[in-house]
Amino acid sequence: MLTRRQLLQGTGAALVAGAGLPAAIRSAGAQNPAGATRAPLPAPAGQGYTPVITLNGGSLPWTMDNGVKVYHLIAEPAQREFAPGMLVNCWGYNGSTPGPTIEAVDGDRVRILVTNHLPEHTSVHWHGLLLPNGMDGVGGLTQPTIQPGETFVYEFTLRQSGTFMYHPHGDEMVQVALGMMGLFIIHPKNPAERPVDRDFCFMLHAWDIEPGSYRAKPATMTDFNIWTINSRVFPGIDPLVVRMGDRVRIRMANLSMHEHPIHIHGHHYVMTGTDAGWVPASARFPETTVNVPVGTIRVMEFVADAPGDWPLHCHKTHHTMNAMGHTVPNMVGVQQSDLEGKIRSLIPGYMSMGESGMGEMSQMNMPLPENTLPMMTGEGPFGAIEMGGMFTVVKVRENLAHGDYADPGWYQHPPGTVAWKLEGKS
Amino acid sequence: MLTRRQLLQGTGAALVAGAGLPAAIRSAGAQNPAGATRAPLPAPAGQGYTPVITLNGGSLPWTMDNGVKVYHLIAEPAQREFAPGMLVNCWGYNGSTPGPTIEAVDGDRVRILVTNHLPEHTSVHWHGLLLPNGMDGVGGLTQPTIQPGETFVYEFTLRQSGTFMYHPHGDEMVQVALGMMGLFIIHPKNPAERPVDRDFCFMLHAWDIEPGSYRAKPATMTDFNIWTINSRVFPGIDPLVVRMGDRVRIRMANLSMHEHPIHIHGHHYVMTGTDAGWVPASARFPETTVNVPVGTIRVMEFVADAPGDWPLHCHKTHHTMNAMGHTVPNMVGVQQSDLEGKIRSLIPGYMSMGESGMGEMSQMNMPLPENTLPMMTGEGPFGAIEMGGMFTVVKVRENLAHGDYADPGWYQHPPGTVAWKLEGKS
Amino acid sequence: MLTRRQLLQGTGAALVAGAGLPAAIRSAGAQNPAGATRAPLPAPAGQGYTPVITLNGGSLPWTMDNGVKVYHLIAEPAQREFAPGMLVNCWGYNGSTPGPTIEAVDGDRVRILVTNHLPEHTSVHWHGLLLPNGMDGVGGLTQPTIQPGETFVYEFTLRQSGTFMYHPHGDEMVQVALGMMGLFIIHPKNPAERPVDRDFCFMLHAWDIEPGSYRAKPATMTDFNIWTINSRVFPGIDPLVVRMGDRVRIRMANLSMHEHPIHIHGHHYVMTGTDAGWVPASARFPETTVNVPVGTIRVMEFVADAPGDWPLHCHKTHHTMNAMGHTVPNMVGVQQSDLEGKIRSLIPGYMSMGESGMGEMSQMNMPLPENTLPMMTGEGPFGAIEMGGMFTVVKVRENLAHGDYADPGWYQHPPGTVAWKLEGKS
Repeated sequence: MLTRRQLLQGTGAALVAGAGLPAAIRSAGAQNPAGATRAPLPAPAGQGYTPVITLNGGSLPWTMDNGVKVYHLIAEPAQREFAPGMLVNCWGYNGSTPGPTIEAVDGDRVRILVTNHLPEHTSVHWHGLLLPNGMDGVGGLTQPTIQPGETFVYEFTLRQSGTFMYHPHGDEMVQVALGMMGLFIIHPKNPAERPVDRDFCFMLHAWDIEPGSYRAKPATMTDFNIWTINSRVFPGIDPLVVRMGDRVRIRMANLSMHEHPIHIHGHHYVMTGTDAGWVPASARFPETTVNVPVGTIRVMEFVADAPGDWPLHCHKTHHTMNAMGHTVPNMVGVQQSDLEGKIRSLIPGYMSMGESGMGEMSQMNMPLPENTLPMMTGEGPFGAIEMGGMFTVVKVRENLAHGDYADPGWYQHPPGTVAWKLEGKS
Repeated sequence: MLTRRQLLQGTGAALVAGAGLPAAIRSAGAQNPAGATRAPLPAPAGQGYTPVITLNGGSLPWTMDNGVKVYHLIAEPAQREFAPGMLVNCWGYNGSTPGPTIEAVDGDRVRILVTNHLPEHTSVHWHGLLLPNGMDGVGGLTQPTIQPGETFVYEFTLRQSGTFMYHPHGDEMVQVALGMMGLFIIHPKNPAERPVDRDFCFMLHAWDIEPGSYRAKPATMTDFNIWTINSRVFPGIDPLVVRMGDRVRIRMANLSMHEHPIHIHGHHYVMTGTDAGWVPASARFPETTVNVPVGTIRVMEFVADAPGDWPLHCHKTHHTMNAMGHTVPNMVGVQQSDLEGKIRSLIPGYMSMGESGMGEMSQMNMPLPENTLPMMTGEGPFGAIEMGGMFTVVKVRENLAHGDYADPGWYQHPPGTVAWKLEGKS
Repeated sequence: MLTRRQLLQGTGAALVAGAGLPAAIRSAGAQNPAGATRAPLPAPAGQGYTPVITLNGGSLPWTMDNGVKVYHLIAEPAQREFAPGMLVNCWGYNGSTPGPTIEAVDGDRVRILVTNHLPEHTSVHWHGLLLPNGMDGVGGLTQPTIQPGETFVYEFTLRQSGTFMYHPHGDEMVQVALGMMGLFIIHPKNPAERPVDRDFCFMLHAWDIEPGSYRAKPATMTDFNIWTINSRVFPGIDPLVVRMGDRVRIRMANLSMHEHPIHIHGHHYVMTGTDAGWVPASARFPETTVNVPVGTIRVMEFVADAPGDWPLHCHKTHHTMNAMGHTVPNMVGVQQSDLEGKIRSLIPGYMSMGESGMGEMSQMNMPLPENTLPMMTGEGPFGAIEMGGMFTVVKVRENLAHGDYADPGWYQHPPGTVAWKLEGKS
């Protein structure tokens, strides 16, 4: 068994090994920390599926080797901008959290190289996939863990379609808490099956990042303070832009520690899939809020038949707020204005607040700790939106000029619409 | 943008404006803080639906204006008696939390005036409704927030039936935490569709109210201590009284921060609806405990075929307790009786307890802080029920003499049954 | 009403009364604290059902009295070994937590004697059963509570099949928190209905046991630190051993305070039952992670068609860890090795750790408090598994020699496989 000393030496070796990787591999799928949504990867000739849009992320390019699709995931530390003004030191894959989305087709033979550039061992479990036991990625049980500097090769044939995930199964609590997760989309063999016009996917997560700090606490179990969609918070999350009449699919995966009930405005949706594949039509029913339990995926579909800006968000009110909202003393109904002067003589700069609720806070330019977002923020066409965290908008537009799926207009703010603005940051 | 000073001045103006409202409007739908269940509002001629019974509340009367149903909601502070002996300073609508239930019919044109008598801005989101984007009630995104003293007019045509909600979408965390929520029931056009004999509805909520205090802390995220059905706790919650053989519908909505698994005794029920409408028969399955996730509605139906008193309650054991149950030191198995005298010489009045569990506490007349309910209480026909919080009873009776749906016997304790009595309060 | 003094005297009497019970009754169903899975109880002649396997437990024997099946439950304190090295002082039934599984057949007349050997009153509620109101077991409402020393007789005819539970409905929060719970399985009248080859059942639970202590804190509401399957933690939980091609049923019940999303590797399963009976085929859909809400049962079925060792575990990462994982300071990325010597001069024996994650901890022989398990443990064929809590493995084997369902090989580690070993304990 390794001693701690040997482990640390191993780490050193790993970093050298990592440095020796070809630049092409290192950058394959590398993501911008600023988290722009990347254009979908077009389907290969002969497989003509509609590719997914990974909100504030993108899909992992692959190469072909004798009919095998070869992907390369690099487990490594990754910086992520959660929204302008907040940069977090995470762990992820290929420079990003979540890692890039893996897209493939039922029947494909896939080979996935996993290189470990973390300071500790890891493994990758392919959540929901039907595969040989030795490929299941459970450290200690089905394989030795991947030591720092090592590359492990997973290879298997896909025999299902649907929405799945990948994440570590070694020091899992810590590694997932720090951001190690990604989606694995398998399209049906026949691209005419289960067609949609727009196909979005993202991962829900929760973090405990003390205001003023740059790293999540991996041991927090219940008291999180930042809730993310693909490791971004509102107003840092791109909208889901669709055309009137589009059939839309949204694939939502949750690796946090709490259920997230995701609510859509102005439309009803039905669950058509889980992390085990597709839901038969007879078992479907309409919802406006779908509960996404931990370790599950909920695939929702609807027809976008009402033009406008429709929020899509977690319905736990604290999960659409950023940090600092949960330990504020209760001042509702407490008259403070006459005391403000007296308190200020003791505590310079003291401001009374909260006497009439917290809505006023989104208008105040309160000084915030370094690297910290306002509790509520976002400026819409009619004023302050007073949100944060797991909140974005489905933009249904009648007159989008472009028909090209790869046009950034499909996944970024369309012309003529107001983008979210951060308040309380100069 | 408003300064805090302007906002406070606005508040003053609002209160004056509110004082000027006609008394008729102010009292429309006003609820008794003591929370008696009001008789159902009969369906208008030609619409002949079975009205809902809002447990410990009632429905909002409307007026007709050229074929439009006109409702008036007043957002305002509201006192609520959670059970005899506990009065809470909340925020609500028309003097009550939850606000009055809005009842209408698919196809109706509705106009809803929302007057803001709160000290801060608000807005109303119509959860689950299909409507024009400008009527969606999202402050900043689809409308400016409603300032104190202002009235905002929502108007749209209903084109769906089912169970929906209304709640603020501006400073949402605070305003919902303080009690701002209500149900919106839309009956099918054809009253013969989806018929039931008794149709109950209520909202689940959670509060953090320090023993001895009168106001909930709006920033609490996980550690709540009071769990309510329509802002009442057992034994302050009315029973659901039904006749043997009745087909019963219970519509449960949840705007708290946690899932509430609602368990029924002696019967099985099936989910026939969500906050997006109705569940097709093929997707239904029997349950005795239905999990109601946050921001969702679960509509359950069953035939009352077993006479008796059948509990209906949240199955999280802490949610059928009132405050003070969660930080008690663990004395189970610790022999204290021989130490009681010694400790009492240091702490006058000290009582050893908990040595053999906590059941004894419901029999003890422990001194409680002001405005605080016992942790476990309620006296049934066979002694202490040892409950609190989200607990009530479905009373199935064979020989109810009255057939009139508006008879209080249908929603209050029937003759000959024992009403809950509070223990530990003199 | 009883005074506390009378109650204590009653307790004394109860213990005497308990001592007087025939040894045969006392030991009926008595379970080994070490928690070995017992051989299934064969079905009686003429009822030929496939009996259930209660993981790390067993079923309660009964006697026949004029066509009535007579069971005897004894509510009493019970010691339980959660895994080698950790013995907990619990409350349970017949010497065990969970209590023994009750197995019967639809149409059976059952009589269940409940003797109270606890120091306080109790009652038994038959969760999910359709029965006369007086048999529902709700203390104060449908019966007086059972005082220490008393025996209460429940008797009713079963008129349903499926998976149900029993637990107290008096001082419920405390008694359930200490381990009082059990399963109640009712097989269909026709044994050919809903056939499976292997039928497993267990209860999920959560406890707050301070490291170094021997008893759970019954008042904890959210911050638990031990998560169990049938009151055992990994590596103390037996595997689910099945043969290739077997149709497998797993019945999971949850009486803790949180949802547990139970994930299976290498297979998909469908929910075929709840605590109200069976789910119609039209309402079923495939899952790899089934959320088990509080106070519910989820019955899952699948065909074991992939050989190997497939984890079955809660997907909340903290729930597959034992205590001590949640308040560790965040040292990820903090270089400590150069400080170790200096700190050690102040704190003898200080070890720096966590700099590169927590994976290293499973290899360290850290000194642990008395009666405390390592946070992560378990040794598999390829090294440390780094798990704890709600984690076990479905072992699918092609060449199991025995066909006898009662052979321990079916529910214990099969020959030739590596059993879990505890690490960090000498």
